[in-house]
Amino acid sequence: MRELEDRIVRDGKILPGNVLKVGSFLNQQVDTALIGRMGAEIARLFAKDGVTKVLTVESSGIPIAFAAASALGVPMVFAKKSVSSNMSGSSYVAPVTSYTHGKTYNIVVSAAYLTAQDRVLLVDDFLAVGQALRGLICLCQQGEAQVVGAAVAIEKQYQGGGDALRRDGVRVESLAMISSLDEKKGITFCTQPGQSL
Amino acid sequence: MRELEDRIVRDGKILPGNVLKVGSFLNQQVDTALIGRMGAEIARLFAKDGVTKVLTVESSGIPIAFAAASALGVPMVFAKKSVSSNMSGSSYVAPVTSYTHGKTYNIVVSAAYLTAQDRVLLVDDFLAVGQALRGLICLCQQGEAQVVGAAVAIEKQYQGGGDALRRDGVRVESLAMISSLDEKKGITFCTQPGQSL
Repeated sequence: MRELEDRIVRDGKILPGNVLKVGSFLNQQVDTALIGRMGAEIARLFAKDGVTKVLTVESSGIPIAFAAASALGVPMVFAKKSVSSNMSGSSYVAPVTSYTHGKTYNIVVSAAYLTAQDRVLLVDDFLAVGQALRGLICLCQQGEAQVVGAAVAIEKQYQGGGDALRRDGVRVESLAMISSLDEKKGITFCTQPGQSL
Repeated sequence: MRELEDRIVRDGKILPGNVLKVGSFLNQQVDTALIGRMGAEIARLFAKDGVTKVLTVESSGIPIAFAAASALGVPMVFAKKSVSSNMSGSSYVAPVTSYTHGKTYNIVVSAAYLTAQDRVLLVDDFLAVGQALRGLICLCQQGEAQVVGAAVAIEKQYQGGGDALRRDGVRVESLAMISSLDEKKGITFCTQPGQSL
């Protein structure tokens, strides 16, 4: 999605350690109009897949997942990173190791919201090593829900998580796919077929 | 908002300890169409207030805050419950004691996203004792941003947080205001003037 790539170049910041910061428009301060268009693009990519539910994990994927689910006309579910006192009944739990934070935590979702009748689209803001998406896939497997694919705002292709998921048969769509990221050299994007500009 | 009250009666569950669970449509599984209409209603209520930014705290307020900010045509910012490695620069921090979880934590937002030029609308899913909103107000004060008011999906009026904020001069709008909640007697709503059904 050319608009997103342009915005990353314009407003993204590369922090020491080659961390890409997009907090000014994507995952702390959120440009609602841009996110709305990203949601519409995700809905276009998965329009024919009979999606019944969009699943993400708190917190920064929620706006994009909400926008995609709105455009698809389906509910959005978000897994939590801790069990909350307002959860009741049985739950599904999966371990996730965060690349950004460097620790392992459990993600959890009420069993009632993922069922064998569901065709689930996974949505997140970033895809690096793919741990969060694999955790979400694990939750879907526990509920016997079918995963139709995953859509992420930004894939760091060079970290390999997206390609590993694709090798495992998961359809992964990225609105912006970064092939290299360097404090001095800047950001390079992969050319992607089949995406609208 | 009559539609929200009806939905709370239909799909809300009262757990032991008089905790209201609305995870099936509001804060774990999200009915995107309903949340979109709630965002539009919040935008209507604050249409004349020159809002430049909507502020919430992760995670369950994010969908409603996003919908309200989208309808108002302004960015949405969410405070985090821990400092993330993808935050850089100076931050504002405020303590919040969670009524639901019974512990105190800090909420934090990058200083760049709350400035003296901002007119901020606070949005959250629940208002009970008002600690989260007071934390958000504290963040705005640190950034010298003006708080134009707060909009919440569900106010538990009997817990007093909303009325205490109103006494302190904060405009607080609730889409559904619960006057009593009881496992046996069910849910009673306050009648509210000035709200559309």
